[in-house]
Amino acid sequence: MKVAVDAMGGDFAPRAIVEGAVQASQEHKIEVLLVGDEKVVKREFERLNKSKAKITFINASEAIGMGEGILSFRKKQRSSIRIGTQLVKEGDADAFVSNGNTGAIVYISKKILGALKGVEKPALSLLVPTLEGLTLLIDVGANVNCRPSHLVQFSVMGHIFMENVMGLKNPKIGLMSIGEEDSKGNELTREVFEKLQASTLNFIGNVEGKDTYTGKADIIVSDGFTGNVALKVSEGVVETIFYMARNEIMKNIFAKVGLFLMKRNLRKLYKKVDYTEYGGAQLLGINGVCIIGHGRSNPTAVKNAIGLAKDFVVNKVQEKIQNEIANLSHILGEVEA
Amino acid sequence: MKVAVDAMGGDFAPRAIVEGAVQASQEHKIEVLLVGDEKVVKREFERLNKSKAKITFINASEAIGMGEGILSFRKKQRSSIRIGTQLVKEGDADAFVSNGNTGAIVYISKKILGALKGVEKPALSLLVPTLEGLTLLIDVGANVNCRPSHLVQFSVMGHIFMENVMGLKNPKIGLMSIGEEDSKGNELTREVFEKLQASTLNFIGNVEGKDTYTGKADIIVSDGFTGNVALKVSEGVVETIFYMARNEIMKNIFAKVGLFLMKRNLRKLYKKVDYTEYGGAQLLGINGVCIIGHGRSNPTAVKNAIGLAKDFVVNKVQEKIQNEIANLSHILGEVEA
Repeated sequence: MKVAVDAMGGDFAPRAIVEGAVQASQEHKIEVLLVGDEKVVKREFERLNKSKAKITFINASEAIGMGEGILSFRKKQRSSIRIGTQLVKEGDADAFVSNGNTGAIVYISKKILGALKGVEKPALSLLVPTLEGLTLLIDVGANVNCRPSHLVQFSVMGHIFMENVMGLKNPKIGLMSIGEEDSKGNELTREVFEKLQASTLNFIGNVEGKDTYTGKADIIVSDGFTGNVALKVSEGVVETIFYMARNEIMKNIFAKVGLFLMKRNLRKLYKKVDYTEYGGAQLLGINGVCIIGHGRSNPTAVKNAIGLAKDFVVNKVQEKIQNEIANLSHILGEVEA
Repeated sequence: MKVAVDAMGGDFAPRAIVEGAVQASQEHKIEVLLVGDEKVVKREFERLNKSKAKITFINASEAIGMGEGILSFRKKQRSSIRIGTQLVKEGDADAFVSNGNTGAIVYISKKILGALKGVEKPALSLLVPTLEGLTLLIDVGANVNCRPSHLVQFSVMGHIFMENVMGLKNPKIGLMSIGEEDSKGNELTREVFEKLQASTLNFIGNVEGKDTYTGKADIIVSDGFTGNVALKVSEGVVETIFYMARNEIMKNIFAKVGLFLMKRNLRKLYKKVDYTEYGGAQLLGINGVCIIGHGRSNPTAVKNAIGLAKDFVVNKVQEKIQNEIANLSHILGEVEA
C-alpha cells in the first residue's frame, strides 16, 4: 500500500511530517510518498533512523500556507496538496494525508477527485472527545447550504466510518437540533428527522447543542454551517475559560499554589479536551481516501493520521459508502443509485 | 409604574420571586403586581419586611411547569404567564417579568401581545459574559427559519437595547458565520451581510463561533436555530469541562489540595461564566415589555430583572424599536414602514 503525505502542510512541517511518515512506514509496513520541496524534505529525512522505512520523494515546488484563500488554491498548480491529490487520482497512491490548509484540501480534492458515485456532497467529519469517548461531528464546514438528502447521506457516511474505522457497531446517530422533542427544529432538520426515522440507521432523534460532549450520540449530524459554528464556539469557550481561570487564579497566592499542585492533572485534562489530539478530520464521500490531520500535529499525530488512512483503505470504506448510498434511494427518492 | 411579575415561575418560586418583587418595589419605587396562586403568594409575602413596598395580588389558579410543552401553553387559560401577559395587553401593567418556562412566555406573548408595528419576527436575546464585558446574542431560539430581513431587524433591535438599556453607544454588531472574510457564510448570512453593510449600524462583519466570548462584537446576530445551538453548545462545554476537571483532580491528593486552595477564585470564575447571573433574556420586538429571567434566579436576580423591565419602560425601548424599524424600509425594501 502507498500513502501520499503532504510534507509541507502543518505548523511543524516539514520536520514533524517527515518524522511521522518514517514512523508510519516502519510501524504500519506501508510505502509513504513524501510530497514537497525535495531538497528540504530529504534534508529532514537524512537526520532520522530510517531502518526498514519505505519512503519515496515526490517533488512539489509550491506550498499553500495555512492562511491562504481560494485564489492560491486555484493558482498554485504545483502545490504539495494538488500533487498529492493527483497521485490518488492517477492510482499512484491509495490515500492522501495532509496537515495543511483544510479549505485547500477540501477544495482541491473536490475538484480533482470528485464525489463517490451517488454521493451528492462530500462532507468534513471530525472526532471530538466526550465524557464517554469520541463522537463524530459531520458536517463541520464543507457544505454551508444543505438539502435534507445531504444530511441523510452524511449520516450514512458517518455510520460507515464509525463501524469500519473506529470499530463501533451500530453507532447511535443524533440530529443536531434545538430541542429533543421530535417536532423541534427548522425546516431542514424536520425533514431529515423523518427520513432518518425511515432508515435502518440507529437514529436516536434530535440532540441539543448541550449534548455534543456528553457522548449521548456517537455521530451528530448537521449542515456544515451549524456544525462549523458549534465546533468553533466550543473552541472559543475552552480558550476563554482557561484564560479567565488563569487570570482569576493569578490574583491570589493560595490559588497560585493550588494551580501548581494540580498542574499535572490539568495538563491531562487539557490533552483530553484538545481535539487536535485525535488525528483530525476525514473528508467522507470523496472518490479517494483523504485524511486531514490537524495543523498542530506532532510526529505521533502524523503517524496516527497515516495509520487512519491505511484503515480506510484496508476496510474498503469508500466501497461501503458507495454501496450504502445506493441502497438509500428508497428513502431519499431523489438520489440516483 | 406597574410591573406584573409571574410569582409561580422559576426553580425557587414563589419564595424567591415574592422576595425579589418586594425588594424591587422598595428599591425602584414601583408597584409590583404579583400574579399567582393568591393564598400561597400571600403566605410568602407575610414573612417579609414590607415597609414602603407597593404590592398588589392578582390571582392565577394555574401555573405552567418548566418541562411543559405547547399543549399546556394553549390549554392553561388561567396560568400566571397568560394572566400576567394579559395585564400588559390591557394596559393594567407596563411590563411583565417571568422566570418561568421560556417557550411558554415566547408563545403566549406572541399570541396575546403580537409584534410591534413593522417588526416581522420578535426575537429572543440574551446577554452572555465575555473577556471584555457582556455581548448580546440575538436570536437564541424564537425563530428557527429566518429570512434576511429578519436578521437585519434583529440587529436593529439589539442595537436599540444595547444603547438604551445597557448604555453602550454605537455597539459593534457581528454576524455569526463560518469565516471572517466577507464572502464566507451560507445563503442567508451572505444576503444579511450586504444589507447590514448598507445600513447605518456599526456593522463589523462576520464573526466566527470562536469569537462569541472574546467581546469582539457587542451584539452577535444569527437565526434562532444557529443561535440556540451556539448557546447550548457553550453550556455543554462548560459543564463537561468542569465535570472532567473535577474527575481528573479527585484522582490525586496534591491536586485535591490545590483545588481547595483555589476554591474561592474558581467560584468567582464560575459566577462570571454562568450567564444566569445576568438577569436572563429579553423578548425584543413584542408589543409590550417582556423580560424572561433565568429559572434559577435568586431574589436579587428577580429584583434585577424587574429593574431591567423598568429601564425598558423609562427609556421607551419599544417606541424606539418601532421608529428605527420604520426607518429601515429603504434597506429592506420588503417591510412596510
